[in-house]
Amino acid sequence: MDIAAVNLLPYEDFVNIFGNVVEKCPIIPAAVWSRRPFVSVKAFEAAINEFIDALPESGKEGILRCHPDLAGRDLKSGTLTRESQEEQAGAGMDALSSSEAARMARLNEEYKKRFGFPFVICARINDKAAILQQLSARCQNELAVERARGIEEVKKICHLRINTLLLSDGTFKL
Amino acid sequence: MDIAAVNLLPYEDFVNIFGNVVEKCPIIPAAVWSRRPFVSVKAFEAAINEFIDALPESGKEGILRCHPDLAGRDLKSGTLTRESQEEQAGAGMDALSSSEAARMARLNEEYKKRFGFPFVICARINDKAAILQQLSARCQNELAVERARGIEEVKKICHLRINTLLLSDGTFKL
Repeated sequence: MDIAAVNLLPYEDFVNIFGNVVEKCPIIPAAVWSRRPFVSVKAFEAAINEFIDALPESGKEGILRCHPDLAGRDLKSGTLTRESQEEQAGAGMDALSSSEAARMARLNEEYKKRFGFPFVICARINDKAAILQQLSARCQNELAVERARGIEEVKKICHLRINTLLLSDGTFKL
Repeated sequence: MDIAAVNLLPYEDFVNIFGNVVEKCPIIPAAVWSRRPFVSVKAFEAAINEFIDALPESGKEGILRCHPDLAGRDLKSGTLTRESQEEQAGAGMDALSSSEAARMARLNEEYKKRFGFPFVICARINDKAAILQQLSARCQNELAVERARGIEEVKKICHLRINTLLLSDGTFKL
């Protein structure tokens, strides 16, 4: 699918296809549909990022709180979104040793207790070791720094999800 | 559950419980969690309404686009959220005569074509006749009027969903 095809989508198809490019936040692609036509995929992504940036700080925290823990409850119970499932599995989050799993669980809890939102990282460009190292290091950040950092990761995840969707147009009936 | 119990909820439980008080927009309750403690249920609702009101017009349209059609595809295919299913069934949307269903489908399409978002109405305080009458009448509105009107209906739906959740606290493990 190219940007011309994206621009032609009725909002219902657009939201069905792009509804989870920001985890569990279909309101975001549903909002940027108002900004069509996009001159490029980059412009489509920029519209999403601008929408996110214009939210109040509570809204940015709200986006982060819509994300699951890495190697957390939703992974164990099979209730992750399809995209998160693939991303977490790709980074080896479904195959941690018991000591790695215990460390991840402990650090996730520490992070959430400190910040009031979960640790978000683009799992597709980080391996297990990098994720554990980042989680440990980012637990030390100040709230405002970490909120901004989490949102930067959300944008990286969104970029890769959009790319995947546009490269796999056979998946969707258009 | 009273407001004191709501104020004590970790964000994960809070989002699990209140995640769909605005249809498919868990970001909204997830954002207002930052505003705890709430002095009352009214204050909790006010925080949600303030978050919605502060969104750009595209964001308000985004909220509306997260709503299903009344008596539409999701009702027929059983893919409505639990809340929407109950609300639409309560208003008789699952038991339209063939002529009512045809009229509803035609007006829904006319509405979406005109505004670029679906017709939203609080089904729990309207019966079938009122819904059809409103849908027909609101098709004639200007875009800005209708966007604001749709958002007012979203707030009524949210109010009733919160009331239902707080009155049925046995449903949730707290």
